[in-house]
Amino acid sequence: MELKKIGDVTFIPGGVCAAPGFRAGGVQCGLSHAGAIPTAGKNDLAMIVCDTMCTAAAVYTTNKVKGAPIQVTKEHISDGKAQAVIVNSVNANTCNPDGVEKAEKMCRYAAKSLGLDEKDIIVASTGVIGQPLPIEPIKAGIPPLAESLSYDGNTAAVQAIMTTDTMPKEVAVQFHIGKKQCTLGGMLKGSGMIHPNMATTLTFLTTDAAISPELLQRALSDVVNVTLNRVSVDGDTSTNDMVCVLASGAAGNRVIDSEDKDFEAFETALYNVLLNLGRMMARDGEGATKLIECTVSGALNERSAVTVAKSVITSSLFKTMIFGEDANAGRIYCAVGYAETDLDINKVDIDIASRAGRIAVGRQGCLVEYSEEQAKAILSEDEIQVIITLGEGTASATAWGCDLTYDYVKINGDYRS
Amino acid sequence: MELKKIGDVTFIPGGVCAAPGFRAGGVQCGLSHAGAIPTAGKNDLAMIVCDTMCTAAAVYTTNKVKGAPIQVTKEHISDGKAQAVIVNSVNANTCNPDGVEKAEKMCRYAAKSLGLDEKDIIVASTGVIGQPLPIEPIKAGIPPLAESLSYDGNTAAVQAIMTTDTMPKEVAVQFHIGKKQCTLGGMLKGSGMIHPNMATTLTFLTTDAAISPELLQRALSDVVNVTLNRVSVDGDTSTNDMVCVLASGAAGNRVIDSEDKDFEAFETALYNVLLNLGRMMARDGEGATKLIECTVSGALNERSAVTVAKSVITSSLFKTMIFGEDANAGRIYCAVGYAETDLDINKVDIDIASRAGRIAVGRQGCLVEYSEEQAKAILSEDEIQVIITLGEGTASATAWGCDLTYDYVKINGDYRS
Repeated sequence: MELKKIGDVTFIPGGVCAAPGFRAGGVQCGLSHAGAIPTAGKNDLAMIVCDTMCTAAAVYTTNKVKGAPIQVTKEHISDGKAQAVIVNSVNANTCNPDGVEKAEKMCRYAAKSLGLDEKDIIVASTGVIGQPLPIEPIKAGIPPLAESLSYDGNTAAVQAIMTTDTMPKEVAVQFHIGKKQCTLGGMLKGSGMIHPNMATTLTFLTTDAAISPELLQRALSDVVNVTLNRVSVDGDTSTNDMVCVLASGAAGNRVIDSEDKDFEAFETALYNVLLNLGRMMARDGEGATKLIECTVSGALNERSAVTVAKSVITSSLFKTMIFGEDANAGRIYCAVGYAETDLDINKVDIDIASRAGRIAVGRQGCLVEYSEEQAKAILSEDEIQVIITLGEGTASATAWGCDLTYDYVKINGDYRS
Repeated sequence: MELKKIGDVTFIPGGVCAAPGFRAGGVQCGLSHAGAIPTAGKNDLAMIVCDTMCTAAAVYTTNKVKGAPIQVTKEHISDGKAQAVIVNSVNANTCNPDGVEKAEKMCRYAAKSLGLDEKDIIVASTGVIGQPLPIEPIKAGIPPLAESLSYDGNTAAVQAIMTTDTMPKEVAVQFHIGKKQCTLGGMLKGSGMIHPNMATTLTFLTTDAAISPELLQRALSDVVNVTLNRVSVDGDTSTNDMVCVLASGAAGNRVIDSEDKDFEAFETALYNVLLNLGRMMARDGEGATKLIECTVSGALNERSAVTVAKSVITSSLFKTMIFGEDANAGRIYCAVGYAETDLDINKVDIDIASRAGRIAVGRQGCLVEYSEEQAKAILSEDEIQVIITLGEGTASATAWGCDLTYDYVKINGDYRS
């Protein structure tokens, strides 16, 4: 899919290895279980390591069930520093009595192979919840994985974090801070159990920009809030979500330590990476055939705009309608109507659009006549925009989702067994 | 499915005609539209009328998009009285500029045919949103419909309110207030666009009990709150939901005008009718193959118990798992974990049960080992219980839902076109 560009950045390949000084890799260590998800033959263990110590920041799921790796990572980056990431797919290491112990072991084995301190390792897991994590394959897999790390190992790494993802998701950009060229890249896994108001999914970001831990955390929280936190696939908030970023400072820019124009340039780079990773995630939502982008403007405030946009993209009736390529705007009004915010439905206008054009489907709370043929042409595209104007104020927001299809049911009816 | 009985009532047939003095009927007036839902050959216009003026009460959807009939009905029963109901399916008469005018016309035509005042008519519509309501077929259909009304016309009436429902839903009970035998019955339509926190769907109730308008309203609100408001099929809150009740007083009991034991007996009767109509609605959720009942106990307060129970029954991942008959308890913990209430996940226990038995699947926040065979046997039944204990207090609550299946997607991908 086409990348969306906002501001002065250049897209480049390389994912988590795009920034100089970051090596990555992935191996198949053999974490499959009885009736596993279709990962047989796929990498299931990845590492990222920087040549030097990095500033680190992360955001985590708001689910009260938190995967064991999250507890360990939180502790390890509490000093604002980390140098490497170890992550497995297939098994989430969550709801297990010995989960924390095993997450700590993963850090210990990784640290040993890399010659680092285990407190400088970020650990993450994704996959089935509540199955004991087999630690032996991981222990055995880490030394060859560490051997295999390379400055273009991003592809092997991103394959290792996929679960029901059908495509690897990587984005990287070059940008400038002052006169120094910087790079920021990342990889994301995520397809189901994805819902706004949390970190959403596993995402690993690397950059050579120099930035203080406080400002790195602020930028990450700010940008996740308007990108990944506005993506919903199925309304389920995962237990293992984490977005983390490592910043090496190797680009040699003046360290960003206040909210100045350098910070803005950094946030713009981060926004471009997370916006596009988020759009890829929605497009690759479990069973999805279409990316849906819902923009709400004319809202009293941003919170209200977000609430309406999320209400629409999470509506099952709306999502199945988009799958059916049917312009039943009554379902959009319905979802606007039950959004928990104040609005006057008699002021609400609705358009639908795509590469094939744009038409009005609702004006002032009522459906309007339109060409069914044109509506069908618009909805037969694979990226659909829904544009809603509330007529209350000047705030706006965008949220991303996908259609609800037979394959979502198939994937999740069959996931484990 | 088997009816659940709570307290001292006797189930009887007859639906909205079970209480003496109520006639009903349904006809096919021809409201189909291009590419209509499969109602061809099905009744689409129903009436209920009482021999005498009734006390009336209703609860309505919380959606800010409210069908035009709701506005008209609200006005008509503002005096606490009504004598008849006119209702059509196929078209919801919502998001149309002339909706109110047409809803008023429906009342006028019905009143004329019945020799009543139009202010004593309750009007409701259900079906596609945002299509102009063809009033001529309704106008032409009302006189023969009025002619056809009978004291056993409940079956013809319930067929006329079905949309994607696959089975008619009627329940009636006999009970005693003092020494007087009373009857309360009702019919419900509802299959998709069903979500808690609202009146949920169209439901019409009739009784010969004598009760003041205030107490009738209180009983209706109380009981809807713990029955229909705890059913979710797809998380979409409809625009046209209404539950109304007509009470004729013909049973001759002392008029219920305070919250005494007579009121309790009335509430018990109402609870038995709405509980079972709600269970039928969940079981007949669009595309559903299973009824899911989630009971949460050990909660700090009822609100918390309801929040957790609803979080579980609305989780798409949980619903597809039940469809797949897979006891992946991690998904239940996940949904408990993102419920917006305070709890300690390490105290939470989870069992699953059905006619085939009951097993523990989670204890103190962790999954426990169980026989996969036994789990499969339990989940292969068509009524599944999920029993969650929070370990925080003594409050409890139950919510009802259904599995998410291919057919939900099919029905809603194809609904209009």
